[in-house]
Amino acid sequence: MKLVVVRHGESEWNQKNLFTGWADVELSEKGVEEAKQGGRLLKEEGYDFDVVYTSYLKRAIHTMDNILNEMDRTWLPIIKDWHLNERHYGALQGLDKSETAAKYGEDQVLIWRRSFDVKPPKLEVTDERAPRNMEAYRDVEDKDILPLHESLKETIERAVPYFEETIKPQMLDGKRVLIVAHGNSLRALVKYFDEMSDEEIMKVNIPTGVPLVYEFDDNFNVLDKYYLGDQDALKAKMEAVANQGKAK
Amino acid sequence: MKLVVVRHGESEWNQKNLFTGWADVELSEKGVEEAKQGGRLLKEEGYDFDVVYTSYLKRAIHTMDNILNEMDRTWLPIIKDWHLNERHYGALQGLDKSETAAKYGEDQVLIWRRSFDVKPPKLEVTDERAPRNMEAYRDVEDKDILPLHESLKETIERAVPYFEETIKPQMLDGKRVLIVAHGNSLRALVKYFDEMSDEEIMKVNIPTGVPLVYEFDDNFNVLDKYYLGDQDALKAKMEAVANQGKAK
Repeated sequence: MKLVVVRHGESEWNQKNLFTGWADVELSEKGVEEAKQGGRLLKEEGYDFDVVYTSYLKRAIHTMDNILNEMDRTWLPIIKDWHLNERHYGALQGLDKSETAAKYGEDQVLIWRRSFDVKPPKLEVTDERAPRNMEAYRDVEDKDILPLHESLKETIERAVPYFEETIKPQMLDGKRVLIVAHGNSLRALVKYFDEMSDEEIMKVNIPTGVPLVYEFDDNFNVLDKYYLGDQDALKAKMEAVANQGKAK
Repeated sequence: MKLVVVRHGESEWNQKNLFTGWADVELSEKGVEEAKQGGRLLKEEGYDFDVVYTSYLKRAIHTMDNILNEMDRTWLPIIKDWHLNERHYGALQGLDKSETAAKYGEDQVLIWRRSFDVKPPKLEVTDERAPRNMEAYRDVEDKDILPLHESLKETIERAVPYFEETIKPQMLDGKRVLIVAHGNSLRALVKYFDEMSDEEIMKVNIPTGVPLVYEFDDNFNVLDKYYLGDQDALKAKMEAVANQGKAK
């Protein structure tokens, strides 16, 4: 069984170096191009899918749209679910990463960005940035399951059960699945697939727009994993992501 | 109960005056703008939806995408189904409308375009334009239900049952539904809702990108129907569509 996961292309806030989380910001032009390139790679390598999963956030949805268009698969069924959303960055959402680093110190920002179980400052329940106050989550009956801030640990605790309960059965049923999601919701899956320690997963930086292929045996043991495309360009991309948290 | 239907914006083949049918062609720049304008109108007028239905064809899917983006509703669930596809134009697909008019006569073209139950020339089952040979319809088990050519009558015979069996129950369940589809699949619904005769529906020209609102009572009797937006611009649009079949 194969599974392909893709992290969304660069967003307008990546470009501005702002903490994004669940803020619903658009892809940058570069991000659109990254998504198209991902789609072209998948097409060239002969990949095809039966169903596509993505988050509630437009930077992932539009990455998926661009991938499917490039693959001539615009008509594929798509499922959007907030359990695949980015980690919720709490009260940091909308703040400039360099400013935050200057204010709290680079070390604190690195702790918030790279630690496993430390949550960023919490949003007030009345904050308009709180998912419980956003239209997109109006159909979630129990608003208390919607986060006000998350560590990577909590992102894992919602993304992995979603994979297990919803996506895995599709794969076991023979469906070829593509997941288009976010840096941290994909880290959640990578940690789960590769049985990484809490420390190991913190060092993983998934590049934007590059298809990551997992091959599994019937018991979901990883037989192989690899990124598609030019491996040197890939390395440069991963280093760029790792450097984002440093003060300018 | 309210239902909103939107016909996709101008496609690249509308612009070239080619018979399109199930050929999967992209929106023109004008078509993208029409779709955005439709989305802005819906937003301004305070419309909102719970679920969106569209066809397997990218000109409808991308119209829907643009509408949802303008409405800040990118995250809404969307369902694609080929029963909402455009009428299948058989062997005319890909032919120039003016050339076809010059070859077969304007009258024959008008018969093919505007008659209720006359089918255009049939595609061979081996033709690559036949849906049974297209990737998009690979999951349809009984390939014989996929058309090789259709009259409006047959478009109705697949689109209306789909509405009755799949969309209507959602509406009765309180869901606010948007349908983004095609000139003839929407004619099918209009005929059904308004209980029009075969002659009446042939005179109906639904303008591209303009939201058409139906209000129903609990028994699906039409209480009111109206297009959103500037009514003069609308009239000019409808006349432009009616004139498309004439030889240049």
